[in-house]
Amino acid sequence: MIEERQKALINALFEKNRYKICEIIDDMFPIDIAIILEEFDDKNLLDFHQLMEKELMAEILEQASEELQTRFIKLLKFQDIVNLFSYMSNDDITDILGSLPIKMRKDLLKMMKAGDTKQLQELLGYNEDTAGGIMTTEYIALKSDLTIGESLKKIKEIGPKTEVIETIFVLNKNKELIGIADLRDILIAPEEKRLADIMDDNAISVNPEVDQEEVSLLVSKYDLKAIPVVNHKNSLLGIITVDDIIDVIVEEQTEDILRLGGVSREERVDSTLLISIIRRLPWLFINLATAFLAAFTVGLFEDVIAQVVALAAAMPIVAGMGGNAGTQTLSVVIRSIALGEVSLKKNWKSIFKEVALGVINGAATGVITGIILYMKYGNPYLGLIIFGAMIGNLVIAGFFGFLIPLLLKMSGIDPALASAIFLTTATDVFGFFLFLGLAKMFLHLLL
Amino acid sequence: MIEERQKALINALFEKNRYKICEIIDDMFPIDIAIILEEFDDKNLLDFHQLMEKELMAEILEQASEELQTRFIKLLKFQDIVNLFSYMSNDDITDILGSLPIKMRKDLLKMMKAGDTKQLQELLGYNEDTAGGIMTTEYIALKSDLTIGESLKKIKEIGPKTEVIETIFVLNKNKELIGIADLRDILIAPEEKRLADIMDDNAISVNPEVDQEEVSLLVSKYDLKAIPVVNHKNSLLGIITVDDIIDVIVEEQTEDILRLGGVSREERVDSTLLISIIRRLPWLFINLATAFLAAFTVGLFEDVIAQVVALAAAMPIVAGMGGNAGTQTLSVVIRSIALGEVSLKKNWKSIFKEVALGVINGAATGVITGIILYMKYGNPYLGLIIFGAMIGNLVIAGFFGFLIPLLLKMSGIDPALASAIFLTTATDVFGFFLFLGLAKMFLHLLL
Repeated sequence: MIEERQKALINALFEKNRYKICEIIDDMFPIDIAIILEEFDDKNLLDFHQLMEKELMAEILEQASEELQTRFIKLLKFQDIVNLFSYMSNDDITDILGSLPIKMRKDLLKMMKAGDTKQLQELLGYNEDTAGGIMTTEYIALKSDLTIGESLKKIKEIGPKTEVIETIFVLNKNKELIGIADLRDILIAPEEKRLADIMDDNAISVNPEVDQEEVSLLVSKYDLKAIPVVNHKNSLLGIITVDDIIDVIVEEQTEDILRLGGVSREERVDSTLLISIIRRLPWLFINLATAFLAAFTVGLFEDVIAQVVALAAAMPIVAGMGGNAGTQTLSVVIRSIALGEVSLKKNWKSIFKEVALGVINGAATGVITGIILYMKYGNPYLGLIIFGAMIGNLVIAGFFGFLIPLLLKMSGIDPALASAIFLTTATDVFGFFLFLGLAKMFLHLLL
Repeated sequence: MIEERQKALINALFEKNRYKICEIIDDMFPIDIAIILEEFDDKNLLDFHQLMEKELMAEILEQASEELQTRFIKLLKFQDIVNLFSYMSNDDITDILGSLPIKMRKDLLKMMKAGDTKQLQELLGYNEDTAGGIMTTEYIALKSDLTIGESLKKIKEIGPKTEVIETIFVLNKNKELIGIADLRDILIAPEEKRLADIMDDNAISVNPEVDQEEVSLLVSKYDLKAIPVVNHKNSLLGIITVDDIIDVIVEEQTEDILRLGGVSREERVDSTLLISIIRRLPWLFINLATAFLAAFTVGLFEDVIAQVVALAAAMPIVAGMGGNAGTQTLSVVIRSIALGEVSLKKNWKSIFKEVALGVINGAATGVITGIILYMKYGNPYLGLIIFGAMIGNLVIAGFFGFLIPLLLKMSGIDPALASAIFLTTATDVFGFFLFLGLAKMFLHLLL
């Protein structure tokens, strides 16, 4: 029956009768149409593509065998490929790319990179912050059964056009990455040996959707000169070179420092006034909201302050020191997160250390503060109250300074962006509340 | 006369008569002694070295010709060399190292790196944060008159032992670095060409005392795989590879983030409690001192607060928002400094932008704050006063946030370390002073 339909289709194609074609394939699954297309010659394939809905065409292509995919893609113009890809999920596109011959895959990816067809790059879902977004196709990939002599010849041919020459990527017959070979080893190996004999089959690779920050951690951990990007079938899509990794590290670091400082995105000293306003003002409004929370807390105790005005002068010390201590914890935790060294699951016990640190540092700074206040205002109880409030607020600072960034990280939010605001809200509100609350409780001792 | 002395010296050496030797050379300058030593055979040289004061010996060596230096160093045991070097300035040591044959220089530096003789490394003055401190000797340096064929043979020989193979460093007869050759170009060049023909004679290099942060900026700017380290005579001392540069960048970034957060040195989430206390408590004490400055400022206005308690609740808003806005400016400037993009000389005009930004952001947040306070306390003048104080404090924040890190940088102090403390002191003290001062001036309107 399939053969009958095939014949009917070819006839309909010959007549360019779109209506007839649709009738024939109307009740067929894409996979079945794909099977029929397998037997088509190039001309029929192109005619079919021209007459069909692109959405259906894309579905068929997704289901087709690797051979058909490759043959078909080769026939099409670049813009047609982009059109088809626009109906596919990026998994499928990545699969199809993986099954193309290396040369073609490189060309396609290069055209995507060229920027005039940003479209396809976006379709691919290779976010610019992912491995796929920063990879290059300027690498040397050789089949594992090549001899050293043949390899050297190839390397001399391709070498001048590539970014990385020290590391040669080794593929098997199915174009899967099975190892990497060091040019050093190739240079000294006997001519007749094969790449497979001297390669290191323990290559570290990443998938295209991996975040660039993770890639940079891998490269820096293993001192790699380049890291291969492969799809889930282990086909080589591209490589990321160490100089791009440096850019990533610098960029991520800039982002972290600016976000920690309350600047939402890239800003330079010579950015325009307008850009600076846009980057900073929204953040100040958020800060203002938390400042009002703190002010509201103070407002609750206006009667107490009216009776003991010394409290007004002393209360910023408690809140401020809490903020400072919390920021210290925050910095250590956020940096450890960025370096991939810490997770809530693995390091939750460290919260006890932070709390203990809060008690010790709170007591150390609190005792000095207490003594100075006692000397200034002549009331020992004021000193005792601020001593207690300092310990309490520094414990809170350690607790939240540790927990907030790790919880944000777990929820997929950049801890550098939002941690500080939550933290200072906590230390301000709790700081004022603790100090003024204690003062209210022991008001009779202060008067 | 020199010949006479030479003969006398050799006789004295033969007799191992230290007293006689000293008598002979007593009135001679080191350079003259060096000239006499030129004619000594190895045995006499060694005897002389054994009998002489090491300090004098070091002076003579400094003045000697490169040939004598090399011959002499070759005769000595490693520990003797270290001893002599201990009397020399690191400039002279670097000079002598530069005149040694590459192999020997590498061996010496490798031994220094080995760590069992940290001593020499310290003597060299190669601080661990400088190019000299992070360089390696695992490179390939070839003479410029070698043919491509000869070069390839050498590369195959040395290659497996080096860290960098893609970049070959090219030296002239005087062992000065005159260019770099790309392995790609060597692979495709005709066998009979010479290295000098295909090398790039525009190599970027650094001196050993250059700060590692500057080195990393160069490597990242020019996408280098390795950067050569040369002494002031342009002799190749070592190279720094890109993977070490990544470590430098990560390390410097960690330092910046931690210092900005008020943690003086490297600390991890799993550092011990004691380490955390040592790293953080001193910083909290400094913060405490500035907190007291702020509290003292508030204390000046206790009479005003006693009459208008609402001021106590509102004043942390002014100080806090100033701190936030200043931190934004600080982050942008400190990051730009770290990336080598900014200097006070070049970018001083940007301070006007920061001041303008302070006016605009101060007005935007101040008007909201003013309205809310007016609504809460029913006094329009309280709203106007906080509006004015917010603008004033955000201008101060922008002014100091810009100026402090650049001034610290100019004075050779790490801006990440000390900027925040100066800034928050400024925004706290000025913030409270402005707001409460204005309130005192217009007290009759608030009552």
